[in-house]
Amino acid sequence: MTVFLLDSVRFAVEHRSAGRATGPTLQVYAEAPENRELLRFDCFDRGAHWHLDPDGRDLVTPLRDGVDSIEWVISALRADLNGYLVRAGFTPKPPLAADRVVAVLDRVEQAMRNPPLDLDAIRPEMRRPSLGEKWMTYPEDALPAWVADMDFPIAEPIRRVLRTAVERSDLGYPIHPAPTDVPELSVARMEQRFDWRPDPACVEILTDVVQGIVVALHQFSKPGDGVVIQTPIYPPFLGSVRSTKRRLLENPLALEPTGYGIDVDGLRAAAAQGARMLLLCNPHNPSGRVFRREELDTIAEVVLAHELVVVSDEIHGDLVYSGHRHIPFASLSREVEARTITLTSASKAFNIAGLRCAVAIFGSEPLKRRFCELPRHLRGGIGVLGIEALRAAWRHGQPWLDQVLAYLEANRDYLEGFVLESLPGVRFHPPQATYLGWLDCRELSLDCDPHRFFLERARVVLSNGAGFGSPGRGFARINFATSRAILSEVLERMRKALQDRV
Amino acid sequence: MTVFLLDSVRFAVEHRSAGRATGPTLQVYAEAPENRELLRFDCFDRGAHWHLDPDGRDLVTPLRDGVDSIEWVISALRADLNGYLVRAGFTPKPPLAADRVVAVLDRVEQAMRNPPLDLDAIRPEMRRPSLGEKWMTYPEDALPAWVADMDFPIAEPIRRVLRTAVERSDLGYPIHPAPTDVPELSVARMEQRFDWRPDPACVEILTDVVQGIVVALHQFSKPGDGVVIQTPIYPPFLGSVRSTKRRLLENPLALEPTGYGIDVDGLRAAAAQGARMLLLCNPHNPSGRVFRREELDTIAEVVLAHELVVVSDEIHGDLVYSGHRHIPFASLSREVEARTITLTSASKAFNIAGLRCAVAIFGSEPLKRRFCELPRHLRGGIGVLGIEALRAAWRHGQPWLDQVLAYLEANRDYLEGFVLESLPGVRFHPPQATYLGWLDCRELSLDCDPHRFFLERARVVLSNGAGFGSPGRGFARINFATSRAILSEVLERMRKALQDRV
Repeated sequence: MTVFLLDSVRFAVEHRSAGRATGPTLQVYAEAPENRELLRFDCFDRGAHWHLDPDGRDLVTPLRDGVDSIEWVISALRADLNGYLVRAGFTPKPPLAADRVVAVLDRVEQAMRNPPLDLDAIRPEMRRPSLGEKWMTYPEDALPAWVADMDFPIAEPIRRVLRTAVERSDLGYPIHPAPTDVPELSVARMEQRFDWRPDPACVEILTDVVQGIVVALHQFSKPGDGVVIQTPIYPPFLGSVRSTKRRLLENPLALEPTGYGIDVDGLRAAAAQGARMLLLCNPHNPSGRVFRREELDTIAEVVLAHELVVVSDEIHGDLVYSGHRHIPFASLSREVEARTITLTSASKAFNIAGLRCAVAIFGSEPLKRRFCELPRHLRGGIGVLGIEALRAAWRHGQPWLDQVLAYLEANRDYLEGFVLESLPGVRFHPPQATYLGWLDCRELSLDCDPHRFFLERARVVLSNGAGFGSPGRGFARINFATSRAILSEVLERMRKALQDRV
Repeated sequence: MTVFLLDSVRFAVEHRSAGRATGPTLQVYAEAPENRELLRFDCFDRGAHWHLDPDGRDLVTPLRDGVDSIEWVISALRADLNGYLVRAGFTPKPPLAADRVVAVLDRVEQAMRNPPLDLDAIRPEMRRPSLGEKWMTYPEDALPAWVADMDFPIAEPIRRVLRTAVERSDLGYPIHPAPTDVPELSVARMEQRFDWRPDPACVEILTDVVQGIVVALHQFSKPGDGVVIQTPIYPPFLGSVRSTKRRLLENPLALEPTGYGIDVDGLRAAAAQGARMLLLCNPHNPSGRVFRREELDTIAEVVLAHELVVVSDEIHGDLVYSGHRHIPFASLSREVEARTITLTSASKAFNIAGLRCAVAIFGSEPLKRRFCELPRHLRGGIGVLGIEALRAAWRHGQPWLDQVLAYLEANRDYLEGFVLESLPGVRFHPPQATYLGWLDCRELSLDCDPHRFFLERARVVLSNGAGFGSPGRGFARINFATSRAILSEVLERMRKALQDRV
């Protein structure tokens, strides 16, 4: 139970899951003169209702089916908390101040929407069977640490909106492409989190980030045109250049003793080979680098000098660990913004890749216009649940994300320690963002690639580094977004396989 | 409760929804010597389990979480029903024959998966609020009969798979694009229902049918190429020709006193104007025509003579009324098949347009190859829930569809009678398929288009006929996929508006 105080009024939020009554309850008490329950709001997923003066009259009113009951409660109390208390037989003196009511209700709402998580509880048998590839592609005795899904439960605000839609058969044509509030939500999120305020008129809803990359390549370059990519890189970057028949200009990141950095001279040289576009990945997958402002500035210099169009995949921008800060590439300057298409989504940070919804934020109107000259229907319609999940995540999911991020950071630290102590010969720079570790296995001198080695000898599925471009050979990517128990088992198996090989 | 008999064994299926226990129960009784319960399978959405010999030992075994409990039960009994009965203390003499066990279990499974529907119960207050455009675009006092969503609840097999995915946070990257069984399911459905057996290697999963149309236009023609369309037509057909900058060759259907037919001379003339493609809609939206074999043959003759590529939207093929039969265009002959891309989906017949999943069935390998030369990522990923909903619909949803179709046919007949008796001046040919009525309002001599007239004067939202191409002017399309109560109210309002206008 979480409790908030406002003068002599106490707000207690509890999450219940007994019988059919699943969902949060908000109880409002008068602390003085007696500890009396004045109001109770039972926001259950079925049969939500509220009680006026449960200790006295107990007048019960059902909430309308299909309405978001938490939203209803918070709005009602925000509008007239004092009035509700009076009706329940308690007159606060002096009346509760409006601004303080709003502040406490914001916290009450967050607590109501986000029940506590138990991430430690996750076990393989809870993830199988599954509809997804992560847990179903390899045999049951192999532990999957490859595809970038998390093993964690989704945020309750997302589950709530999905559950309501499914139970109410609300799965018809969505309001989109008629205007939704996704552009405003996107802009507000960029501003709040990254201090960047794009124009809501320049936001477009897409199916996924990779679609954004391919459409941008299709619209802003021609077959044979050069496209700069900083390898090693998330494999669909390379695939998109191949499938659109553009020319790959590889600018490998420089692997220094301290980790990966930008090779500026290499970048300049690549750009000079007829580059039209740069596909940026920031935070970078698989290295986990969060590029610093001075690094981004050097990239921007090359971009401006060569008049490149930049596609910046910033889907990991919400998964940045303490001590680092995500800077949207488009936020560097007006000139840079005007050349940059920023791609992001709730799908990565909120673990809903299968729902398919992303946004493109264009740094200028001409960029958007040209992108959208490709008929929208070629991109396909956006699923109603993808849109609603993104809205729920960005409006109400932050407490879930904060908790998940803290867990991931602890996993990252654990991984770092484990590699150092127990995986001799594996080199590893802990990621500054993402839940992906990029393991340099070259010094192990394995007789096959590390993906195959660990699959066959450890029954652990990593992503094969070779798929991330030529500098990825001899590397493997590990996904540590799982319970500590599973992560430990993965690492123990790897340790044992290395130990046993001699 | 539904009961099936096999010799002296009785199978009783009941759907329960008390407390948390929602889902079907299967009870297996020995009729003789006494009426004794031998087995009970409680396939509830949470906490599914089964009882061995409930009247005696009552050994209770939980089913594994996340497994489709109905599938488990049917598979288990199919494999060894006699064995289960013996374990429950009843030895059938002679043992139940394997083929008859399979047959009765097929019916048991259908009954377990498809609880009875109460379509009459639907009221407007059950549809609002909504995530979709049908009920949310116009003010609350207007009844929506426009967008082609049904007001009916989704089929329980679909709800079941969606609910499981949401509750288990199973929303990550789907197995697709790795092979799924969707091609085989598509082929089996075409064969069973339409006696057409395409090649599973020629099936491709898409986001929606309109995406298939636009991609086909993009891949099989160039800007300025002629595309034949039979108007009036579902507006995205026209939009796709416009947005891809192809040249519209309109071949209006001939409106005879008996209804719409093909204008073959007009079709020949249109094809002769440099046509490269034909966009066919069969069953036809909005006319509701199910084209007969001889009509399709005349179209095929023109297609072959002019070497057209055909895109055949057959999404309404599952919504055909008694006395009519859907013939896939590609099934006419091998030569026709080799030129035809058939587009279909579970989304229309099963009321899940917002989940976004469709299939393209290519009549030849070269067609598929050329279609797929457009990078797949440009089309975007397919949502995991769209794929799973389609699979559930096509594998298990037929009893739901049969019941819905019977209800729709009765609604169609009611609409026909109402128009004839109570909407004087409106002409109407009852559709042979689709849940859409195409109302010819030209003789009413309204002072505005019928969409606006009925919106403003009747507070009823129809689709504006003018959007279906020039022959649609003066028409309106009505969606009758709703409860009889709502349909009656819609029609009564229209009747009154017409009556009041003098």
